[in-house]
Amino acid sequence: MSGNTFGVLFRLTTYGESHGPALGGVVDGCPPGVALSEAVIQRELDRRRPGSGGLTGTARKEPDAVRLLSGVFEGATTGTPIGFVIENTDQRSRDYEAAKNLLRPGHADGTYLSKYGRRDYRGGGRASARETAARVAGGAVAGAMLAPLGVEVLAYTVEFGGIACAVKDVAAAADRPFCAADPDVVPVWEARAREAMASGDSLGGVVEIAATGVPAGLGEPVFDKLDARLAYALMGVGAVKGVEIGAGFAAARLTGSTNNDPIVNPPESNNAGGILGGVSSGQPVIARAAVKPIPSIAVPQRTTDTSGNPAQIVVGGRHDRSAIPRVVPVLKAMVLLTLADMVLLQRRIRP
Amino acid sequence: MSGNTFGVLFRLTTYGESHGPALGGVVDGCPPGVALSEAVIQRELDRRRPGSGGLTGTARKEPDAVRLLSGVFEGATTGTPIGFVIENTDQRSRDYEAAKNLLRPGHADGTYLSKYGRRDYRGGGRASARETAARVAGGAVAGAMLAPLGVEVLAYTVEFGGIACAVKDVAAAADRPFCAADPDVVPVWEARAREAMASGDSLGGVVEIAATGVPAGLGEPVFDKLDARLAYALMGVGAVKGVEIGAGFAAARLTGSTNNDPIVNPPESNNAGGILGGVSSGQPVIARAAVKPIPSIAVPQRTTDTSGNPAQIVVGGRHDRSAIPRVVPVLKAMVLLTLADMVLLQRRIRP
Amino acid sequence: MSGNTFGVLFRLTTYGESHGPALGGVVDGCPPGVALSEAVIQRELDRRRPGSGGLTGTARKEPDAVRLLSGVFEGATTGTPIGFVIENTDQRSRDYEAAKNLLRPGHADGTYLSKYGRRDYRGGGRASARETAARVAGGAVAGAMLAPLGVEVLAYTVEFGGIACAVKDVAAAADRPFCAADPDVVPVWEARAREAMASGDSLGGVVEIAATGVPAGLGEPVFDKLDARLAYALMGVGAVKGVEIGAGFAAARLTGSTNNDPIVNPPESNNAGGILGGVSSGQPVIARAAVKPIPSIAVPQRTTDTSGNPAQIVVGGRHDRSAIPRVVPVLKAMVLLTLADMVLLQRRIRP
Amino acid sequence: MSGNTFGVLFRLTTYGESHGPALGGVVDGCPPGVALSEAVIQRELDRRRPGSGGLTGTARKEPDAVRLLSGVFEGATTGTPIGFVIENTDQRSRDYEAAKNLLRPGHADGTYLSKYGRRDYRGGGRASARETAARVAGGAVAGAMLAPLGVEVLAYTVEFGGIACAVKDVAAAADRPFCAADPDVVPVWEARAREAMASGDSLGGVVEIAATGVPAGLGEPVFDKLDARLAYALMGVGAVKGVEIGAGFAAARLTGSTNNDPIVNPPESNNAGGILGGVSSGQPVIARAAVKPIPSIAVPQRTTDTSGNPAQIVVGGRHDRSAIPRVVPVLKAMVLLTLADMVLLQRRIRP
Repeated sequence: MSGNTFGVLFRLTTYGESHGPALGGVVDGCPPGVALSEAVIQRELDRRRPGSGGLTGTARKEPDAVRLLSGVFEGATTGTPIGFVIENTDQRSRDYEAAKNLLRPGHADGTYLSKYGRRDYRGGGRASARETAARVAGGAVAGAMLAPLGVEVLAYTVEFGGIACAVKDVAAAADRPFCAADPDVVPVWEARAREAMASGDSLGGVVEIAATGVPAGLGEPVFDKLDARLAYALMGVGAVKGVEIGAGFAAARLTGSTNNDPIVNPPESNNAGGILGGVSSGQPVIARAAVKPIPSIAVPQRTTDTSGNPAQIVVGGRHDRSAIPRVVPVLKAMVLLTLADMVLLQRRIRP
Repeated sequence: MSGNTFGVLFRLTTYGESHGPALGGVVDGCPPGVALSEAVIQRELDRRRPGSGGLTGTARKEPDAVRLLSGVFEGATTGTPIGFVIENTDQRSRDYEAAKNLLRPGHADGTYLSKYGRRDYRGGGRASARETAARVAGGAVAGAMLAPLGVEVLAYTVEFGGIACAVKDVAAAADRPFCAADPDVVPVWEARAREAMASGDSLGGVVEIAATGVPAGLGEPVFDKLDARLAYALMGVGAVKGVEIGAGFAAARLTGSTNNDPIVNPPESNNAGGILGGVSSGQPVIARAAVKPIPSIAVPQRTTDTSGNPAQIVVGGRHDRSAIPRVVPVLKAMVLLTLADMVLLQRRIRP
Repeated sequence: MSGNTFGVLFRLTTYGESHGPALGGVVDGCPPGVALSEAVIQRELDRRRPGSGGLTGTARKEPDAVRLLSGVFEGATTGTPIGFVIENTDQRSRDYEAAKNLLRPGHADGTYLSKYGRRDYRGGGRASARETAARVAGGAVAGAMLAPLGVEVLAYTVEFGGIACAVKDVAAAADRPFCAADPDVVPVWEARAREAMASGDSLGGVVEIAATGVPAGLGEPVFDKLDARLAYALMGVGAVKGVEIGAGFAAARLTGSTNNDPIVNPPESNNAGGILGGVSSGQPVIARAAVKPIPSIAVPQRTTDTSGNPAQIVVGGRHDRSAIPRVVPVLKAMVLLTLADMVLLQRRIRP
Repeated sequence: MSGNTFGVLFRLTTYGESHGPALGGVVDGCPPGVALSEAVIQRELDRRRPGSGGLTGTARKEPDAVRLLSGVFEGATTGTPIGFVIENTDQRSRDYEAAKNLLRPGHADGTYLSKYGRRDYRGGGRASARETAARVAGGAVAGAMLAPLGVEVLAYTVEFGGIACAVKDVAAAADRPFCAADPDVVPVWEARAREAMASGDSLGGVVEIAATGVPAGLGEPVFDKLDARLAYALMGVGAVKGVEIGAGFAAARLTGSTNNDPIVNPPESNNAGGILGGVSSGQPVIARAAVKPIPSIAVPQRTTDTSGNPAQIVVGGRHDRSAIPRVVPVLKAMVLLTLADMVLLQRRIRP
C-alpha cells in the first residue's frame, strides 16, 4: 500500500538505504514449522554480494551478514513475524557529496525529488540496488517454505550485451560467471564485457526464471493472476524494463494453432509458460525479465542540476558495470516470494 | 486480495460470468465532484462491444448497456462507492453444453478446475473476456477523474499478426480498424486477418499505451513502482503474455550511454518510458503489451477430457478471431485505473 | 482501504445510497461448493426489513428483494465473486428537500460535508442505515459457508431503553419482539417503547452476539486479533458506540484470580469470551454492542444550517424509533463475515 | 493481512518475541519532512518501560533503547520506510522452562498452540506484552507527524481496581502514578494495589484517550469508520476487553433527545465522542478501553498441561501486577497510529 510491503499472505516488508545504518525486513505470514536459520538466508545473500559472479566493477566490500531477530525457535519458524537485519558496514558517503546537486541520467535522483521533495542522495538512498539484499533474504525464507513442497526456482541469464545463448545447463548456472544458461557463451560474454568496461560503458541482458513443481491451481483471477503478480514482482526490480511469460512477445506473432499448447501427456510445448487464464497448469512456470544497462557510467553525460541548470556529469563512486549477474538471485527471490504467497492463498480454497 | 479488486485507493471490484445474469462492479475511492454519467461510461464500453472495430468473427450481439446504481448525485460523484451493472442479454449457453467435458487448449478450463474443483463452463464463465467490460467501465470512471488533471491515455495497435507498423497518427487510432497506429497498415493487416480466418485460425499483436500529462512523482518504491503496477495491470488482462516499459526488451541490448536519456530540456529521448526508479518523470509514460492469438480456433486440436482421456476438439461458439481491437480499450482502462490510484496515493505525500 | 470493503480473504464490498437506484455488493473469496441461492439470502434480509420485529415507526415499505448476479452455478458457489443487487423501490425524496440545508443532530450530515465537500442529502445518502441491507446479504453468504463447518451465530437483545433482561432463551430470539433474549421482558420493553414514542423520542439498547462451534486457533496476532476484528466489525455499524468481549468492562473491575477462566474440562466460566491472546479458544465467542438511540426524533432540537446559522429542527420523514430490533441481524452478519474471513486466514497456517 | 501490519497508508509492521534477540518494526508511509530522532521515540518508550509509573511488580530491567535504521536523513524523515530495532537484553528464559508444559489461565498459551501447532513458550513469546514496545515506537513517529498539524493525544486512567476517579487534570497524567486522571485518587488506588499484591492477585482498570485538534472529516465510511478503526486499534492491545466511544454503553441507556449533541457553537456536550457517522466532527475524539487484570498471578490456579491432564499452576517469573500504567502509552500510541493513517487517507479526497 505504501510501497514497501510485498504479498498478501506471505508478506515481505523492507527498509533501508544504501548509506544508512542498516537495511532489513520483516517476513510476516510464513507458516510455522519451516526449517530456517541464518545460514539458509546467508547462502542466498552471498550470491548477490558485491564482487560475486566474476564480472563486476564495484569496489564496495560488504559482508552482508544477516541477523535473524525473531520468529524462529529451535531451528524452525513459529508462525510469528521473522525480523532480520543486515548492517551497512562499508559506506563511503563522501563519494557522493560532490555530485549531490547533479541529477544522474537513468537514475531516480530527479523523480525521487519530485515525489518526496527531499532525498537521501548518498549512493541513491532507498533507490540504490542495495535494497535488493532484503528481497533476497525474504526470498530465501520463501524458498525454505516452498522446498519441502517440491517447488524449485532457477534463474539464469539467457542474453548479455545483446548476445543470446542457449538454455543448456541451468542447474549449475548460479555458480557460473554471469549465471549464464550456457557454459560455452561465457568467454564470448566476457569479451563483450571487457569491451564495454574499456569504454566506461555498461551492459544489460535478459534473465529467465523457471519454477518447477508448481502445483496446478495457483493464481487469483481476474486481477491477481499468477502472471500478473509475477510481472509486478519482476518489474518492481530496479533495472527491469520488460517481462514475458512463456512465449511472451513471440506469442503475439504466432497463430492460435501454433501458440496453443495441445493438452497431451506428457506435454509437448509450453508456450503458455505454465499459466492459463492466470492460473498455474502444473507445467513449469517460465518468465523472462529484460535488464537495462546500469545507468552509472564513466562516460560524460548531459544532465541538469537540482536548480535546473544544464550540466555535465561523469558518475564516480563504486559501481558494477552490469546488473548481471547480481540481479539474478534477486529475480529468483521475487518469484519465490510470489509463489509462496500464491500457495498460501490457494489453501483458503482447497485446504 | 481475493483477486477481483484492483487498486489501493482508487479501487475497482468486479464480478460476473459470461453466461450469468449480469456483470458489473464497484468503484470505491473516486473523489467527490468528478463529473460522471452513464453516457461517459457507455462511450468507452461501446469501443469494446462485440462487433466493434471492424474485424471480428463474433456473432454475439450485446448492447452492453451500463446502469449506474450509486455514488453519483446531481451529475457528479459524491465520494461514496459507484456501483454499476451490465446485464447479459444474449446468452446461448447451449453452445457450450456439447463441449463441457473437453478442456480447450489455451483456455483456463483445466486450470480453473484445478483451482476451484468445479466451474461454470458456459462460455468460459469468469475466465471469459467478457469480464473486461467491467474493467472498461471502471477505467472510464478513472478517466473522468484524470481528465481535468490533464492526464490523457491513448492506446493503439503497433503490430498485428506479426506485421509491425509505424506510430504515426495515434490520436485517431481508437476509431480506426484494429485501432492501428498507422492508417496505411490497415489494408495489409486486413489481408493478414482474412488469410487467418480462412484457415480457421487466430492472430495476436502488440498494443502500445501512452499516457501524457502524467505529473512527475507517481509510483511507490520499492515494490509498488509505477512500472511494476502497470505490468501487473496489463499482464492481468487475459490475453497478455508480455509487458514492456519504454525501450523494454530493446533496452537490454543497448549500452548505458545509449540507453540513458540525457536530462535536457526539451527531452531528446524517452527510453525510460517516463519512469525512473519506479517513479514518473513527467515525460509520457509508455507501455506495450503482447497479445496472444485467441485460443478459440476452428482448427482441430488435441486435448484431454475432464476424465483424463485424450480427445480432439474444434471450438464452436461465437468468437472473435483476434483480441485486437477489442482488447485495446481494455488495456487503456487498466492504465487509467493504475494512474488514478497512483495520483491519489501521491496526494498523501504532497497534498 | 477506501472504506467500503470488509475482510481480507472473505471480502464484502458494498455500495448504495438510501435514495439512489439500488444498493448491493460483491462477496469475493467465498470458496467454491457452498450451497447458495437467493432464498438463503432473502431469509436474512427479511429480518432487517422495515416493519420487521414488531416495534418500529417507519412507514417505508421496501420488499428488499435480492438478486444474485454471478458466482453461483447449479445451486452452489463457484469460487468467483458473488454480485448481488437490491433495488430501491419506495423512495420519497421530497421528504428530505425541506431540511436539506439543516444539519440533523446525531447524524452524519455535517461530518460528511466536512469529509466530501458535498453530499447526497436524501435520507442520509450513504450514511443511511439502509446500507446495512448489503451487510446482511453478505453475512448470509458467510453464514452459508460457516454452517457446514458447525459454526453458528446467534444475536439477541439483552437491554432496551435502559432495562436489562436475562439471557434465557436465545435460540428463538430472532423471531421474538425486540429479538429479546428473554420472552418475559417483552411486555416491559413494549411499555418503555410506547412511552418514548408518545414523547417523540427514541431508545437504544445492548445486543449480544454469541458464536458457537468456532474452532480454536482463529485470529491473527498481534493487530488482527479476533477480538480486534470483531470490535472493528461491530463498531463499524452506524449506531454502535461500544463493544465488549466476554466480561468486557466488568473484567476491568475483577481481580486476576476471579477474571481468569480456569482451564478445566468442561469449562466453568467464559470471562474471556472465547478469545485469549486474540485467538479463539474453542469456547463460545461472546461480544456485546451498545446501540445508541436513533438520532431522528420528533422532539425539536437546536442545530445549525449549512451556512452556519443557528436553527431549530424537528426531523420528519419515516423513521424507526429504535435501531432495535432491525440492527440485530446486521450485527450478526458482521460477526459471520468476520468469522468467515478468519476461518479462511487460518487455513493458510493449518490447511 | 497476516496480522503484524497496522494501517493502510501510515503503516506499522512489527516483529519480536519476549525472549528472542530483539523486537522492532518498520513504519512505512510517513510523509517526508517530519522531524524525527531516536530521542523523540525514546521518550515515549521510557514511559512504558518496566518499572515505570510507580506500581509494578516486574523485576525485568530493560533499557529498551531504540535504534533507527533507515528513513531519516539530516534530522527528518525522507518518505522511505523507517526501520527501528530494540534489543532484548535482560532475558531469563530459565524462568519459563519449568512451566513450559502448563497452559497459564488467561494467557494465550493454549490458543497459540491451537493456532500454530508449536510455540515459543519463553515469556509468552510473541503474545508477551513486550511486543507493545514496537507499537509505542511506531506511535511516536505518528505523533511526530501529527504534532505540527495540531493534533494532540492524551491518555489517562479513569478507573483502577474497580475505583473510578474524576477526569480533572489530564495534561499531567502521564507523569503521575497510574497515569491517574485525578491526583487525589492516587493514594486510594495505591491502597487498593497494595491489597491486591499482598494476596498475590492482580488488577485492571479503564483508560481514556482524548485526541484534540482532530480535523473534521477523518474516517472512511462505511466499514472503516473512525470509531471502527479506533475500536480495532484499542481492542488489538492484549489486555483490552472493551472499547467505548463518547458516551459509549451509557448512550444505550439514554433517549435520543438526551444523547444527541445539539449542534451549537461552542458545543455543549460530546456524547458522540467527536465522531458522527464514523467521521470526525472537529470536537475532541474520546475513547475508553477496559483493561483486564493481568492473568499472571501468584494465586494457585487450576489448569491443564499440554498433554491434556489437569494440573495446578502458580505463575512465577517477573510480572507486573497490573497492565496499568504501562498500557497507557500503548493505547495512546494506537490512537496516534490510527489518526495518522486517517489523516493521510483523507488527503486523497481533499488534498
